[in-house]
Amino acid sequence: MTFNISPPDDANDASIQAHIDSRLKPPGSLGTLETTAATLVRILGLSKTSIDSPIMLLFAGDHGVAFEGVSIVDPSTTQLMVHQFLEGNAAINIFCRQAGLPLKVIDCGTLKAHEPHPKLVDHRLGEKTAPFHREPAMTLEQLDAGFDNSRRLIDELHADGCNLIALGEMGIGNTTSASALMAALTHLSFDMCIGAGSGVTATIMKRKQDIVQLGLQRHAQALQDPRLALAALGGFEIVGMVGAMLAAAEKGMVILVDGFITTVAALCACRLAPEVRGYLIFSHCGDERGHRPLLDQLEAVPLLDMGLRLGEGSGAALALPLLRSALAFYHELGSLEEVGLTL
Amino acid sequence: MTFNISPPDDANDASIQAHIDSRLKPPGSLGTLETTAATLVRILGLSKTSIDSPIMLLFAGDHGVAFEGVSIVDPSTTQLMVHQFLEGNAAINIFCRQAGLPLKVIDCGTLKAHEPHPKLVDHRLGEKTAPFHREPAMTLEQLDAGFDNSRRLIDELHADGCNLIALGEMGIGNTTSASALMAALTHLSFDMCIGAGSGVTATIMKRKQDIVQLGLQRHAQALQDPRLALAALGGFEIVGMVGAMLAAAEKGMVILVDGFITTVAALCACRLAPEVRGYLIFSHCGDERGHRPLLDQLEAVPLLDMGLRLGEGSGAALALPLLRSALAFYHELGSLEEVGLTL
Repeated sequence: MTFNISPPDDANDASIQAHIDSRLKPPGSLGTLETTAATLVRILGLSKTSIDSPIMLLFAGDHGVAFEGVSIVDPSTTQLMVHQFLEGNAAINIFCRQAGLPLKVIDCGTLKAHEPHPKLVDHRLGEKTAPFHREPAMTLEQLDAGFDNSRRLIDELHADGCNLIALGEMGIGNTTSASALMAALTHLSFDMCIGAGSGVTATIMKRKQDIVQLGLQRHAQALQDPRLALAALGGFEIVGMVGAMLAAAEKGMVILVDGFITTVAALCACRLAPEVRGYLIFSHCGDERGHRPLLDQLEAVPLLDMGLRLGEGSGAALALPLLRSALAFYHELGSLEEVGLTL
Repeated sequence: MTFNISPPDDANDASIQAHIDSRLKPPGSLGTLETTAATLVRILGLSKTSIDSPIMLLFAGDHGVAFEGVSIVDPSTTQLMVHQFLEGNAAINIFCRQAGLPLKVIDCGTLKAHEPHPKLVDHRLGEKTAPFHREPAMTLEQLDAGFDNSRRLIDELHADGCNLIALGEMGIGNTTSASALMAALTHLSFDMCIGAGSGVTATIMKRKQDIVQLGLQRHAQALQDPRLALAALGGFEIVGMVGAMLAAAEKGMVILVDGFITTVAALCACRLAPEVRGYLIFSHCGDERGHRPLLDQLEAVPLLDMGLRLGEGSGAALALPLLRSALAFYHELGSLEEVGLTL
C-alpha cells in the first residue's frame, strides 16, 4: 500500500510569520501558541479559519507480550476499558465532552469482539498480537490490512468535512511494544526508551527490559525497514494509528498526537513517510521516561507538560482548546498598525 | 482595612485524595490535573460540581517609572490597549471568548479617564503612580482606597454567584514595579528578579536595574512591611489585584493567577495574609526571567509552560478549560471499584 503524501505547502511561511508578528501584541509574546498557529495555518491554508468536525480516534488492541508479565495490569483490562469508552464513563469521555470532541473507539484487535455500538469501529486484525520476543507481532498482511482500514476511516471523515483528528490508544502491554519500536527506530539508548508504563514493580520492569531486548535481537534483520520493524514489534492499535496518520497527511488534515505510545506511532509514520511530520501537532509531554527524548528526536515542542501518563488520548483532548485559541488569535486579532502601535 | 481570611478547609483533604486515587485511571496518571482538582474541591467544597460565573478582571494602571526610560514602549500604550480591551479587539478578548469567560477592565489609574463603557470599572486612584526611585509610588490612602474598591467589586461578583476570578493586568512599566516588589519581598538575588518585560534593549535594561536598585535603597526602611512596600514600589493595578485576591480569599473563591506581574501581586497578597495562598491556582509559567523563581518561592506548580509573556490575563484564560476538566473528572469519573478494576 502506497501513500501519496506531500508535505504542507511552505510557500506562505514568510507571510504567515509576518502576519503573526504584526498582530496586536509584542512579537513572540504568545510562545508556543504562535508556532502552533503557524503550523495550523500552514496545514489548513490561509483562508480556513476554523477547526472543523474534529474527532478523537481511540485505537485499542491487545498484545501477546501482555501475557508475559510486563504489566501490573491484567490483559483483560483493555476489553473492560473499551466497554467504558463506549459507555462514556472513562476519563477521555469526560475530556472529549469538555472539548466538544466526538469520540470513536477503533477495535483493532482485542481479546474478544464487542457488540456493535454507534461509537465502535470494527477493524479487528485478530485477538491479540503474537509475543514479539518469540515471533513477529503480526504478519505483513495484517499490517497492510490495518493501514487499509485506517485509510478508509480517514477518507470518510475527510469527506464529511473533518480537518483535524486527535489520536489516542488503549492496550495493556503497549508501552513494551512502543519502547521496542522507539529503540529500534531511533538508536537511542535502550534505557531511555523503557519506562514505568501505567505502573510497574522492579520485577516487572526487569521482565519488560528483557522482552524488549529479546525482541530487538530476534528481529535485528527486520529493524532496518520501518515497515518490517512495525510488523515485528508493533501492536494492532499502533498500526491503526500509523495508518491514520499516513492517510490524514495524505488528505492534508491536522494530526493531534497524544502521549508516548501515540508519539511512537508518529515516529513510525515519519520513518515510513517523512512528509507526515509537517501535519503533526504534539499535545503534551507525559511522564513516561521515553517521551521527552522521543519528542526531541522528532524536534517536537509539545503544548502541555503536566505529568500525564494515562493515554486514551487524554492529553490531546485537553490540548484542543489551545489549538482553537491559536487559530482564533491568528484570524481575529487586529494588527499593531491598525491601532498605531509599535511593541 | 482588615481582611478576615480563613485558609481553605483541609478537613476533607484525605477523602479528596482518596476519591481522586480511586477514580477509573492509574493513581497519579493525570499529573497536575489531579492536584488542580484537589485544590478546586478543597476551595469550593465537596458538593460544588461547577465553576460558576467565572470572570476575567483585567486591571490597568500607569506608572511614573514608565517615563524614566524603562520600556521600549510609550506610556500612552496602556491607554490605547485599554481602549482595545473595551472594544473587544485584543488577544485577551479572543481568549476569553474561546473560554466562555466574560471580561471587565478595571481602570485603577491610567493617564486619562475613559468614556463610560459596560465593560469598564472606574477605580481610578490617579493618573499614574509617582516614580518610585524618587518617592513612594502612592500614599497609604491610595493603597487603602484601591483595596476598598476591589473588595466592593469582588463582593458584588460573589453575591451574583461567581466562584472564580481570573486576574490579568496592563500597565507600561509594570515589570519594573513588579521586579522591585519581588526583590523586596523575597530577598532573591536582584538579577533573578529583573527581566526583559515586553522587550528591552541593553540600555533600557541597565536603566531598569538602576531604577529598581534606587527604589530598594530609598525605601529600605519600608520594605520590612509588605503594605508599606506595596505602597512604595507598587502600581495602582497591582494594588487592585492584591485587593481582589484578599477579598476573593475572604469569600472563599478560586483565584486564577496569570503571568509574572499577577504572580507578584499574589506574592504581596500572601505576605499580607498567608491564608490567601490556598485559594490561588497558577495558570502558567511565562518567559519573564523572575517568573519561575517566584513560582518556586510560592511553591506553585503552574498548569501551562508555553513561553507566554503577553500579560493581559492571557495565560489564565488559556488555562481555564483545564480547570473545568479537572473539576469534571473529579465529579463525573466513576471508580475503579465499580468497574472491578485494579490499576
